[in-house]
Amino acid sequence: MSAIERPGFSTQLPKGVQLYLPDEAARKRHVEGRLLEVFRLWGFREVITPSYEYFDVLAVGTDEALQERMFKLVDRETGRMLALRADITPQLARIAATRLRDRPKPLRLAYVTNVFRYEEPRVGRHREFYQAGVELIGLPKPEADTEMIAMAIEGFRALGLDRFQIDVGQVEFFRGILETLAPDGATARALREALRRKDAAELERLVGALGPPPATGDLLLALPSLYGRAEVLERAAKLVNNPRSERALENLVEIHRLLTAYGLVEHIILDLGEVRGFDYYSGVAFEGYVAGLGAELCGGGRYDHLLGRFGPPCPATGFAFDVDRLLLALEAQGVEVPVRGPEVFIIDFTEDKTAALALSRRLRGLGLAVARDIISRGLEESIAYAREIRAGRVLVIGAPGAAAGTARVLDLATGRETVWTLAELLARPERLIEPLPAAGGVRA
Amino acid sequence: MSAIERPGFSTQLPKGVQLYLPDEAARKRHVEGRLLEVFRLWGFREVITPSYEYFDVLAVGTDEALQERMFKLVDRETGRMLALRADITPQLARIAATRLRDRPKPLRLAYVTNVFRYEEPRVGRHREFYQAGVELIGLPKPEADTEMIAMAIEGFRALGLDRFQIDVGQVEFFRGILETLAPDGATARALREALRRKDAAELERLVGALGPPPATGDLLLALPSLYGRAEVLERAAKLVNNPRSERALENLVEIHRLLTAYGLVEHIILDLGEVRGFDYYSGVAFEGYVAGLGAELCGGGRYDHLLGRFGPPCPATGFAFDVDRLLLALEAQGVEVPVRGPEVFIIDFTEDKTAALALSRRLRGLGLAVARDIISRGLEESIAYAREIRAGRVLVIGAPGAAAGTARVLDLATGRETVWTLAELLARPERLIEPLPAAGGVRA
Repeated sequence: MSAIERPGFSTQLPKGVQLYLPDEAARKRHVEGRLLEVFRLWGFREVITPSYEYFDVLAVGTDEALQERMFKLVDRETGRMLALRADITPQLARIAATRLRDRPKPLRLAYVTNVFRYEEPRVGRHREFYQAGVELIGLPKPEADTEMIAMAIEGFRALGLDRFQIDVGQVEFFRGILETLAPDGATARALREALRRKDAAELERLVGALGPPPATGDLLLALPSLYGRAEVLERAAKLVNNPRSERALENLVEIHRLLTAYGLVEHIILDLGEVRGFDYYSGVAFEGYVAGLGAELCGGGRYDHLLGRFGPPCPATGFAFDVDRLLLALEAQGVEVPVRGPEVFIIDFTEDKTAALALSRRLRGLGLAVARDIISRGLEESIAYAREIRAGRVLVIGAPGAAAGTARVLDLATGRETVWTLAELLARPERLIEPLPAAGGVRA
Repeated sequence: MSAIERPGFSTQLPKGVQLYLPDEAARKRHVEGRLLEVFRLWGFREVITPSYEYFDVLAVGTDEALQERMFKLVDRETGRMLALRADITPQLARIAATRLRDRPKPLRLAYVTNVFRYEEPRVGRHREFYQAGVELIGLPKPEADTEMIAMAIEGFRALGLDRFQIDVGQVEFFRGILETLAPDGATARALREALRRKDAAELERLVGALGPPPATGDLLLALPSLYGRAEVLERAAKLVNNPRSERALENLVEIHRLLTAYGLVEHIILDLGEVRGFDYYSGVAFEGYVAGLGAELCGGGRYDHLLGRFGPPCPATGFAFDVDRLLLALEAQGVEVPVRGPEVFIIDFTEDKTAALALSRRLRGLGLAVARDIISRGLEESIAYAREIRAGRVLVIGAPGAAAGTARVLDLATGRETVWTLAELLARPERLIEPLPAAGGVRA
């Protein structure tokens, strides 16, 4: 059945996909370009991974929840299941553990790409969405995690965002408590869920039912309040009562010290009750927020056991920005992203286009974008079109009534205009982007 | 079953996908960046389309051969078939005919993205591959097709490729002959196939079997030789004997005239026997080649009837580069693409990293990429690592035996080195990228 027969059918898009028209695409490219530049300045180099792979290979690096949300298809050649990538980190972990396993460490890898997840579309998050991130592979030290957090902050700054904050947790802190309690799977999940929602009442109920040693119970109940500035570390130190959580806390203390040395501590909120993030996280984990948007804009953490699933064990840490949410944040904070059309739009009424062609070539040689009007319509209509495409200036050659060999230049922003000869323009095309003479400056 | 149990399993990639490691990814981004800049200079603005859509919607704009080669999957929510995009032009045609239908024309749209086709991998062509292209929508005139061909040439030039050639055909020329002959479907396909292979013997056999009027037979048999410079137009004019082919020839004559005015005719080969390309082509169609690579690197043409499948009819023309083939062509022609690591690599043996951090910040502020060695190893090993990541210079702070507060600077390209105080470097970090003093220039 032809789609033509069903009005509107041929324009339908599946839920959760996005179309970026020119202005929005320009903003997206601006954001991605700025982030790639931050990544480059910190010595990270881009890697491009396949959009789809064998599902069972991708599954090695992902948890079941993510596996369920993957877009899957059958490889018609092998009959094996393929899946669209839902997370870049496991792909890069595998590449680091296999193709790059003999390269000296650390590896500093970056990416800017789309990922695919079957999820209910929500704030700035679609089923196909764009991430820009880095992986720092081969370093167990807190300096490496600090570098990730510093780069996240640099990313916000490079985009002109302010009032941002990084929530830093340590997944091993809670795991140490869980290990002490050794609850059944359902209770562990309920505890995690209560912490995720910072639901103190439910947490109290669960602790009551578990009946742990009082010190452990106190620590568990304190978790939602172990959130804030440096004093969190002191409070936690008084409560902590198992070696695994102690090591986690020491690690967080060291990262906090380094962030202070970086001069970044004002942006840091410590959160020992943080239990979100991928199950492959194995140490510090963080999320970035900005004022004006109620969802995290970046997230990451240490994953020391992921590479070992594909090859020799190797410590690693990384993080990624959510590009669409950054676009929303820029809007929310009123940060203007320059969105421009061509610098010059040429309307040529003459038959012989030689002058227009020569001038276009000269202007492009200067790095100026030039579009030509190749359509028959009135001058006013052409000028309206130039405005629509956000052109800077309009050059009118051979308009009815104009002197032969002259061209009228109109600045669409100021409304100023002037007339030059084509010979003048060809001799020095730069004048087309210099400020125009004020009113009355029209030359004979 | 865990992939770990099967050695090598967890590293398998499906046939036809690609992984770009840092050097290759840098080359790809360089190529895409140059092409996007050419597109911008001609007034084209990027659009980003969804990677997948409903199959029946994509099918409206594509021929059956391409539909068969699409990656398909079932939308778990609606049960409808989804497909990964196999061609960007039909997506943009639909967007132009629907979302952008009321925008004043012409639309100048660009894209740089991946497409997916089930094909046997061949020279520079994978199942997921990258295209950079433009669509010029709303213009029926030959000037628009000329703009496409001129931009293809500009693209080759911007990449530093030379010895390139654009083969320009006109699909209506052959269709005019077919219309006269009115052969059955199988014969039409056989004729097309014989022309594609420039198989004169088979063509003669088919013409013999058809028994057309002698003038039409002569024209058909001449098609494979209607290939070359301007004289092709004269030869064709003597042979042409149906109105549809005549109109096609007039159109090609006009485009050839315009290409001469653009000063580009030296790169043009006319090919009236060209029958390749998408079935949606409706006029001039072209392919670009460079010396050193036996496959087309770009292709495009006019498609005046595609938008009408989605909305009101609207003329259009466009073309796309194949990014992977351009990468092969650069290699074949020995064009070097700059592939760099960080400008500065800092090896810091001191405990207090304040100086290294401050210097890194200053250098990044100057736009210089700085990576830090956060690993404990010998100096020589660290320097070998710096070479591996293609760093420009190494800065060694607090090496065993070095005076406190000094840093040694080593240029990895020249082997020159010098010593500065950290205070000197912090006062003027630019000196880190200025030429180093010649041998003997080591300061006290």
